[in-house]
Amino acid sequence: MFKKILIANRGEIALRILRTCKEMGIKTVSVYSTADKDSLHVRFADEAVCIGGPPSSESYLVMDRIIAAAEITNADAIHPGYGFLSENAKFSKICQEHGIKFIGASPEMIEAMGDKASAKKTMIDAGVPCIPGSEGLLRDLDHAKEEGINVGYPVMIKATAGGGGKGMRIVWSEEEMEEHWNSARQESKAAFGNDGMYMEKYIEEPRHIEIQIAGDRYGNACHLSERDCSIQRRHQKLVEETPSPFVNQKLREKMGAASVKAVKAVNYEGVGTIEYLVDKHKNFYFMEMNTRIQVEHTITEEVINYDLIKEQIKLAAGDKIKKSAYYPHLHAIQCRINAEDPYNNFRPSPGKITDYHQPGGHGIRVDTHVYAGYVIPPYYDSMISKLITVAQTREEAIRKMERALEEYIIDGVKTTIPFHMKLMKNEKFRSGDFTTAFMDTFEM
Amino acid sequence: MFKKILIANRGEIALRILRTCKEMGIKTVSVYSTADKDSLHVRFADEAVCIGGPPSSESYLVMDRIIAAAEITNADAIHPGYGFLSENAKFSKICQEHGIKFIGASPEMIEAMGDKASAKKTMIDAGVPCIPGSEGLLRDLDHAKEEGINVGYPVMIKATAGGGGKGMRIVWSEEEMEEHWNSARQESKAAFGNDGMYMEKYIEEPRHIEIQIAGDRYGNACHLSERDCSIQRRHQKLVEETPSPFVNQKLREKMGAASVKAVKAVNYEGVGTIEYLVDKHKNFYFMEMNTRIQVEHTITEEVINYDLIKEQIKLAAGDKIKKSAYYPHLHAIQCRINAEDPYNNFRPSPGKITDYHQPGGHGIRVDTHVYAGYVIPPYYDSMISKLITVAQTREEAIRKMERALEEYIIDGVKTTIPFHMKLMKNEKFRSGDFTTAFMDTFEM
Repeated sequence: MFKKILIANRGEIALRILRTCKEMGIKTVSVYSTADKDSLHVRFADEAVCIGGPPSSESYLVMDRIIAAAEITNADAIHPGYGFLSENAKFSKICQEHGIKFIGASPEMIEAMGDKASAKKTMIDAGVPCIPGSEGLLRDLDHAKEEGINVGYPVMIKATAGGGGKGMRIVWSEEEMEEHWNSARQESKAAFGNDGMYMEKYIEEPRHIEIQIAGDRYGNACHLSERDCSIQRRHQKLVEETPSPFVNQKLREKMGAASVKAVKAVNYEGVGTIEYLVDKHKNFYFMEMNTRIQVEHTITEEVINYDLIKEQIKLAAGDKIKKSAYYPHLHAIQCRINAEDPYNNFRPSPGKITDYHQPGGHGIRVDTHVYAGYVIPPYYDSMISKLITVAQTREEAIRKMERALEEYIIDGVKTTIPFHMKLMKNEKFRSGDFTTAFMDTFEM
Repeated sequence: MFKKILIANRGEIALRILRTCKEMGIKTVSVYSTADKDSLHVRFADEAVCIGGPPSSESYLVMDRIIAAAEITNADAIHPGYGFLSENAKFSKICQEHGIKFIGASPEMIEAMGDKASAKKTMIDAGVPCIPGSEGLLRDLDHAKEEGINVGYPVMIKATAGGGGKGMRIVWSEEEMEEHWNSARQESKAAFGNDGMYMEKYIEEPRHIEIQIAGDRYGNACHLSERDCSIQRRHQKLVEETPSPFVNQKLREKMGAASVKAVKAVNYEGVGTIEYLVDKHKNFYFMEMNTRIQVEHTITEEVINYDLIKEQIKLAAGDKIKKSAYYPHLHAIQCRINAEDPYNNFRPSPGKITDYHQPGGHGIRVDTHVYAGYVIPPYYDSMISKLITVAQTREEAIRKMERALEEYIIDGVKTTIPFHMKLMKNEKFRSGDFTTAFMDTFEM
């Protein structure tokens, strides 16, 4: 086992990793920017090294400073957390070259999964369903019609130069193709000066459902069931839960088995997540693979009673996976508490926390690096706390979340607590029947 | 189900009950003394009624004020928590007479279990092993020898007027009886002016192990396994854990079955605890029954994923028990954090908490009513927080406790955190091999 781990991150995840290291009897080194000198990940680490000032490009992203900190302190491993350097192939390689274990994926794996086209190819080879689409650009209307039959209606035609919904059309049948083809190309030409189009299957009423996986160096793999992350705003997850109210045991086993197969096919080592879109017919399609721990790993831990960071560290040290599947026997929900003003378009609200009181009791978990008097710096992600509830049923977990949010006092800055309170009372959310478009129509 | 519950208590347990009520959609009424006006159980309740000043005899123990508060607010039930009026037969009866459901035992049950002799008789009738002993006083040396054979050596002879170990002797065999009989009687006579003696079996290397039970009004009962509360100081529990490192599955089932039998025999309704002494040979002996929720119910909740307060409320409302036994699949430990100075003979340390930060993360539960700025009144119990860790194994739960204690910041008053830190590192404690005498030789 490692003797000393350097944690190349900040905020709640740095503290999260540090806690597990302590519990495992592993010494810890925190690195920090001058903006984070009063953070708990500095206070509770065995050693702490300042690696520069904000923004991240001057500190948390400066590879040679982090490597130097590891060398000075004699750390034998680096845990990158999420974000920052956690999926940076170059950094993974540099660690390797310096004889420091990177607690994450190999450079090759990060590269393979970081490139969308190569990741998709890998998954198709492993038999994982991917979103069907045209190979490359569509030549003309006839080609579009031909591909429409191959892909299967409904389809999306999309501008290759597109973005923000421009040059994008849903086509429900071949009869509609000509009209949409023409208008999408015109729109694309006007907006981007380019009318190149490609096609993808249109996913009806999609949900974002991901499978937590783990693989060891001996070729064993397991899955730890799904997380439903459909409640998103501009592709930022706001609330996650497990099990998904949409996933039945049959689908869970199917998605789990496909994911385990993929992990084995690529000889994946460590913990990771395969993200899928699931349509209303319960077809699932590979989106991307995250070769790191995720913000929402917590809810899986709560329903499976399993420390995923510990598992990650143990796998990096050569541990074996003993079981191929873990299924939830409880229900957990996580609300990401951000220092943002939900009444003002979620505008970030950095500054000093003047009063702080967190909820407690049965079935409550709080992961946070903040406290009364803490100053939230303006340079980083605005997430300041993760509030997790766990209970026998989804309904109970929601009620527990409502009472926990009510107890949660964070004064001095605006937070998303009022948003979560409103969300928990929302009928559509409570019904469990929602899609990734939920937030498009949600009003504070 | 009840519409509104009045909580006739204060501190962490009042908040604990309030939380479950909220999660169940039941309105809450808190009562409070003027010394507790800034307490969280007042802040988070739907309604709060001041019932007088400190000490408890002027407020929390004044039955007619509490009943009046319930009537004014239209509460249909009263939850007494632990301590105060929770095992007061008269109060239970008054509630009954006022048509308010007392969420606890019936007056008859409280009386039956409150009187030691009648409780013992009830348990013997139900087939629960009790500590064997002489019936009434020993007439003379011959009678003592006769009873020694009946009870079985080793035995204790005890002064009927005794206390503090005076006039008390362990007798290992009949040969030793005469000498101890004479010296104990002399000592007793000198100390108390009374040389009446009785006999009890001497429990070798006793552990305090209790079984959590529940019964419904239809005659069903269940047990929820044991809690080991052997770490005590002057009969005050300091640390509790489940499962007990001393109890194997066979003993667990035996104690559980005996307890369920007793619950059924007396038609017990509600949740409760049967406390036993267990000797080194794994014989167990009934000590007493608590007809209320206990401070340490939390650890059972953590290993069984079961809200005991919720269960208690549901049973009081007429719910049925569905299963006869619940076994732990995790390990939980609770440290009682008291505002006491462990370096100064655990002297109470009331006053203002100037800084407060509680631990968080996976497997951590904190039940507390305090916060930064809270003033601990000098009038009540000195327990200010319960810190609970839960993990796959005992060793992991201890390590988690160590790191959680390290993170726990309570400034402005002395607390028992340093004691718990030292205890967690103690080899004897870690080995799991200790008795109720553990604290007699523990040094800070």
